[in-house]
Parts: sequence; C-alpha cells; structure tokens
Amino acid sequence: MKTIRLLLLSFLLACNLAAFAQNKTVVMQSDFGLKDGAVAAMKGVAITVDPSLRLFDLTHEIPAYNIWEAAYRLEQTVAYWPRGTVFVSVVDPGVGTDRKSVVLKTRSGHFIVTPDNGTLTLVASSLGIAAVREINEAVNRRQGSKGSYTFHGRDVYAYTAARLASGKISFEQVGPLLAATVVTLPYQEATVENNVIKGNIPVLDVQYGNIWTNIGQDILNTLHPGYGDVFHVIFYHQGKKVFETDAPYEQTFGEVPVGQPLAYLNSLMELSFALNQGNFAAVHQIGSGNEWSVEVSLPAKR
Amino acid sequence: MKTIRLLLLSFLLACNLAAFAQNKTVVMQSDFGLKDGAVAAMKGVAITVDPSLRLFDLTHEIPAYNIWEAAYRLEQTVAYWPRGTVFVSVVDPGVGTDRKSVVLKTRSGHFIVTPDNGTLTLVASSLGIAAVREINEAVNRRQGSKGSYTFHGRDVYAYTAARLASGKISFEQVGPLLAATVVTLPYQEATVENNVIKGNIPVLDVQYGNIWTNIGQDILNTLHPGYGDVFHVIFYHQGKKVFETDAPYEQTFGEVPVGQPLAYLNSLMELSFALNQGNFAAVHQIGSGNEWSVEVSLPAKR
Amino acid sequence: MKTIRLLLLSFLLACNLAAFAQNKTVVMQSDFGLKDGAVAAMKGVAITVDPSLRLFDLTHEIPAYNIWEAAYRLEQTVAYWPRGTVFVSVVDPGVGTDRKSVVLKTRSGHFIVTPDNGTLTLVASSLGIAAVREINEAVNRRQGSKGSYTFHGRDVYAYTAARLASGKISFEQVGPLLAATVVTLPYQEATVENNVIKGNIPVLDVQYGNIWTNIGQDILNTLHPGYGDVFHVIFYHQGKKVFETDAPYEQTFGEVPVGQPLAYLNSLMELSFALNQGNFAAVHQIGSGNEWSVEVSLPAKR
Repeated sequence: MKTIRLLLLSFLLACNLAAFAQNKTVVMQSDFGLKDGAVAAMKGVAITVDPSLRLFDLTHEIPAYNIWEAAYRLEQTVAYWPRGTVFVSVVDPGVGTDRKSVVLKTRSGHFIVTPDNGTLTLVASSLGIAAVREINEAVNRRQGSKGSYTFHGRDVYAYTAARLASGKISFEQVGPLLAATVVTLPYQEATVENNVIKGNIPVLDVQYGNIWTNIGQDILNTLHPGYGDVFHVIFYHQGKKVFETDAPYEQTFGEVPVGQPLAYLNSLMELSFALNQGNFAAVHQIGSGNEWSVEVSLPAKR
Repeated sequence: MKTIRLLLLSFLLACNLAAFAQNKTVVMQSDFGLKDGAVAAMKGVAITVDPSLRLFDLTHEIPAYNIWEAAYRLEQTVAYWPRGTVFVSVVDPGVGTDRKSVVLKTRSGHFIVTPDNGTLTLVASSLGIAAVREINEAVNRRQGSKGSYTFHGRDVYAYTAARLASGKISFEQVGPLLAATVVTLPYQEATVENNVIKGNIPVLDVQYGNIWTNIGQDILNTLHPGYGDVFHVIFYHQGKKVFETDAPYEQTFGEVPVGQPLAYLNSLMELSFALNQGNFAAVHQIGSGNEWSVEVSLPAKR
Repeated sequence: MKTIRLLLLSFLLACNLAAFAQNKTVVMQSDFGLKDGAVAAMKGVAITVDPSLRLFDLTHEIPAYNIWEAAYRLEQTVAYWPRGTVFVSVVDPGVGTDRKSVVLKTRSGHFIVTPDNGTLTLVASSLGIAAVREINEAVNRRQGSKGSYTFHGRDVYAYTAARLASGKISFEQVGPLLAATVVTLPYQEATVENNVIKGNIPVLDVQYGNIWTNIGQDILNTLHPGYGDVFHVIFYHQGKKVFETDAPYEQTFGEVPVGQPLAYLNSLMELSFALNQGNFAAVHQIGSGNEWSVEVSLPAKR
C-alpha cells in the first residue's frame, strides 16, 4: 500500500503541476523589432527559468521609444488573455535613469512587468490597479548580469516575468509594495459639449491606415446616431485643423463605395474612420498620439 | 482496490488527454501585420478557449485585402502540417457583406477556418474538399462580442478555430453542412500547345525576388528539358510583353554566375526563375497575381 | 499487484517522457523573411516529426545571403538558451554547391544545424566545438523530398533539427563525425597598440541605429576609462575614414542630452556607440560587416 500511496501522491502532484501549467503564459512586447537577437535572448532567459512556459508576442514593432503606443497596444489586448497571464513590455527610453521597474497586478487578474514610465497609463485606468510592486533586483535579476547596464528587458523584465509566470516567485516576492498608482501620460479624454464630441486619436490601425479614436459608445450615443447618418468630422494636429470631411456611420465597410470614407465602431467599440479598401491616414495625412485630436458632430440631428 | 481503480482511471484519462493534445494545433494567417495588437488579441481568445493549444503563425504580412495571396500561402504550407491541424485565414475585404464564414475540411484531413471569398481556391483544388460547413455564429462566436461588427477574425474565426482544435466542438458542431464547393478566383492554368507552355505567376518569392509559376513537372516534362538546356521565357502583364530572356535550367543557383538568370524547380516542384544572388522581380519589374503570365519554350529542342 | 506494477511502470515512463520534453526546443533562424510560407512549412515539418516540440524564432530577417549576420545573431543569443536546445540556421547562398550540411555540438551543450559556410564562425570560437557531424541525408531527409533541390531548410535542416530535438535520433545518428573545425569568415579582431584600440563593427543594433563593436571589456580596460571620460573615435570603411567624433563613456543613455553621442557597453559587454534617442548609423552613415572598423583612444589619459 505504501507504493500505491506514493504513486497516488506522485500522480496528484503531477496533476497539480499540469493544472498550474495552464497559467504559465508570458506575452512579450517591445520596440526591439524582429531583425536582431534581442527578443530571442529574452525568450531564452525565460525558457531557462522554466522550459514549460508558453511564450507569445504582442508586438515588437512599437516605434522606438514610443511609450504612448506601448500603452495603447496593452490596452488593445490584455483583456483578451486569461487571468494570470504575465505581460512584459519593454519600451524604455529612460533605462538607467530613476524610473522604477514594476509589476502591476490589475483588478482583472493580469500582471504587467514594465518600466513605470507611462506604459501603464491606459490599462491601469481601464482594468484597474489591484497592486503595484517594485522589482527587487537583488533577487529578481538574472545571475551574472550585474555588469551590463543596458539590457534590462532580458536580465530583469523577462527574467522576473518568467519567474512570476512559472510560480517560482509569488506576486509578493516581486519586491516591495508601492502606492497603488502608476506614472501616466497626459491625453485628451473624450468629452461632449453642445452636441460636439472631442476626442483623441490614440493610434492608427497601421496596416490599413484607419483612424481610431478614444470616443466610446456611451459618449457617441449622446448624439443618437443611426446607421447611415452622416457625421461631420474635423481632424486637428497641435490644435490646427488638418482635414475636414463628412463620413456616414456604418456597420460594415462594404456599405460605402471603394475609396469612400465611413465612420464605424472598431473592435474596441470606439469611433473610427476609414476609407473602404483605402488608407485614410496616408491619403489625408492624419497621424496619431497625444497631439492629434478630432471633433465630431451630426449636423442633420442638431 | 477502489483507490487503485480510480487511480488507474485517472491515469488513463490523463494519458488520453495527453494523446488528444497532439492535435491541438492552430496556424494563423492574416493581412493584419505585426505592428498592432490584432494578432495578439486573436491568440488571447484562442488561449482563453484552451490554454493547452499550440499556436503558430503562417504569415500576417499578406498585402491588405489580397485574397489571391492568402490562397497561395495556404497552398504553399497546409500539406506540410499534420492531419487535424486547424488553419485560420483572415483576409476579408468583404467583412459585413454576405460572404459566408466557413470551415473547409480537406480530403487530407486539414481544417481551414476563413471567409469563403476565394481564399480556399487553391487548397480546395489541390487537397480536395471533404466537406464545407458554415459557422453558426449563434454558438460559435465569442461571448460579449455581438456589438462589434468589424473584428470577425478575433470573435468568430480565432474563437471557432480554437474550439475546433481543442475538441470543444466537433467539425459537425461548426454549423450546417454546405454544398461541397467553395468560392474560387479565376487564374490562368498551366497549359502546353505546340511545345509552348503558358502559365501564371501566382506569387513572388518576395524575400529574394524570385519568380514562381504554376507550371509543374508534368507539364514541364512535355518539353523534355535536361539540366543546362536553355529556356526562352516571355513575361506578360495583362497580356502585354514586359520582359524576354533566356535562362538555363539548373538544379542549383550556384550553376550560373552571380547575377545571371536561371530556371529551376522551386520547393513546390514548380518552374521558377531567379538571378543567382540577385532580385529577378526588382531588376526586371515583374509582378505576380492573376494578371501576370509567362510563356516558356525550349528552342534547341524544337 | 501486476496491475499496480504496470501502472507504476506506465507512470514512470510518462514522467520520463515529460522530463525529456524539457529539452524539446528548436530555435529557427533564416533569411526567408516573414511574408511567405517558408518558415511555416519548416515548422509544419518539425511538428509532423513530433507535435510536442516547442518551436521558437531567433529571426528570419537576416539580410538575404548575409552569412556574417547569421553568425552574429547566433553569437548574440545561443548562450541564453538551455543546454540541449537545437538551433537551425538557414542562410545558404551556396545551396547545391559542395558546402556541407552539419550539426555543431558546442562545448556549452547547444546544437546548431546549418550549412557549414561561415555561419558557425563566432559560436564555434566563443562556445567551443565539442564535435561536428555531417548530416547523412540518406536517413535525415524528409521522405518524398528527393526531387526538390532548393529547399534544404525545410527538407533537411528543419527535419533533422526536429528529429534531434525530439530524441528520435541521437547526435551520433546525425551522420559521420567530421574534423572538429568549421568554415570561418575572416574578421578584424580587437587589438590594442600604443593605447589605440582597433576593432570591427560586426553588426548594428538595427532598430535604434546603435554601433556595436567587438571590443570587449578586457581590451577596453587597457585604457583605464572612467565613466564620463571622453573617447576619440574614428570609423573606417575599407580602410578609409568615414566619420570622427568624441563620445563620453557612460553607463546609461540618459547621461547625455537627447541627440548627443555616447560610448557604452552593450548587452554583450562590448563597446558600442549611440546617439541618445537618435540613430547614430543613419545620421553618420555607418555600416557593419567585415569591411567596417573602428579606432578608439582616450586622449585625456595619454
């Protein structure tokens, strides 16, 4: 019977490990690009920590040093992953300055390992802050990496994320608890006044050149738009008008002729603009980021 | 003994699950690019369905809206994956129109989840149609996604592919059986007449600029070419001659001097053209797609 | 008791297999790019060999035919992966010539499957050669691939790597033992004479345009530099001076104003040059490879 009990114990342990493995997921983001070995070195470090980790990429094509876009890509994707997934985001123009290396645990149960430089602006707001801990590099730093001052992505962030995702450390063991707040970047929030909505262009849907805004359904619905209604839209850069157009509100791109503008709700349920099978941003020279904004009204319903 | 039986049962169940996991493979293709979060959102949805899925990318760099190239990339790769692999292809200019969302089961035992817009043209022909089912979005659509009309890739295709690959639904549970046919795009088939072969340039080997044709060994062999024999080749766009050259038929690029043209069989065993260590397409302005064709003869053997 | 013993045996076997799976890791590199199906076909072949393999990418954006860069990317990453990891590198301008297809086992316990064309230059030197074996294509070639002469990456390299990583073949079964040497590319080694260091620019940190050299800490320290000390640096192409500048030696980019040059140790602990938040290579037209070199001195300490 001793053999059986031992066997049973081993088996339950194995089951347990198997069950735990379901959370061993790390999703990586950076501005490293895919042309050199930086991402592969990060993955090697993670796999060395625990070969059973499952590693995914969010994107490594964040424009160099663009913290705002890093923040937006997290906002676009984190919520679609299971609770317990660990994200690593390394867009770190201030590497070596006094910016803190942290792990945010969101109220949704996701973890994000990153320099606290604004990268957490949007997910902290949308998913909520459960807790923020500073990475204690005395223990959560790859052995033998002390002499190198520039690749925190590999030696601190990937390493800590792998240890956390694998269960080798608990969230508490990341390091000391900080105040439940993160560094945030300023941006134009969506507002409505006198039936005119103002908002920000946080990002372009780069592959197609569609314009995405931060104007959600709730604010949009204050104008009571119906499909087919025509919005009047003005695009601004640094407060100066860049382009002005009319765009019907449609459920699908196919409702307007090829090359014509339309307004629609994107996959995040936020107001967006596109040319059917065309590139709105390129044709009309529209960009994205803090300095870009948009003004939307519905003349026919005023 | 009860403990033992229970243990045995648990163990066999675990073995069984492990065995099943060998088919839990999803391969994704799209025109989303790798710069934003669209692909990562699709993967998050899939991993949420079943964390043990193994996810791979075919390519996400299909030129925007290019259904023909989507069809070709599937043709180039599906057969190299194990039976039971589930492919997702999202190149969908007609999203929101009446194009059907389907799953093709090929005679080779592969599954392809895609809008039925021509994407299946080539694999349906080469691998054969076992059955086509329309995705029943009443059940095979991510919960909470009803309000969004534009990201079927994430909410329908990735979600359905993950459920199918994981065994949460059977092929039958995808939705109603359709006629065993798919939407096909027209293209110039390879033909031979009076010792002149005509064919299509379905795609370029973009990284190197090599020209690939749809002329297979069987048709090529009607000319009885030997290695070293020199083909005469004419390239046409929309029926107009673009470039004309001689190219020896070689087994390896190294048989001709650097920068010189050669004809060879590519990895799909189809006639192709290259400059040794050069870019044939760029140098001679050759493109690919439905409108490009080629004429090949072997003057010395006429 | 027979049942129990059988059960125990099965369980131990399963544990054993699970333990073995910890080495079933393949990391792939090529100059194929990510736009077509070549990489996916390689992965399909590998997964067909063993569905439990874990596949990763080093990079597939090596510039076409650039063996030197392939060598450098391996040097940059191999050591960060666990012992037993199998690398595949396919940058193969000489495909079809008499270059040998080999597997290098390094003294660090890593395996690299590649054409022996110079790709192994740097890892053979830094990690050491345990043994080199030539791939015996009579057994280590995908069935049914004999007619194709051009896609060794899929039919020989990915196939052999998958068999080796999965344990279907041992290293000995790769093929016959060769002499413990590899084909090497010439390059300027780092030297110091009269307090002037000379070295090579093996590669650019392409995403940011930083200049990396092969000048390690040991040689650098012969100048006894302190942080803040200003190096005088001259860049040469084919022996001709291209650019000359002063650059302070710093631990972090933030120590100099935005746009200004600095010298630092990169993640490989080798001397590098950057503009803080700028692109040194683009601004000053500096390239990398065998033909680029650099001369570094510390005038204040002479």
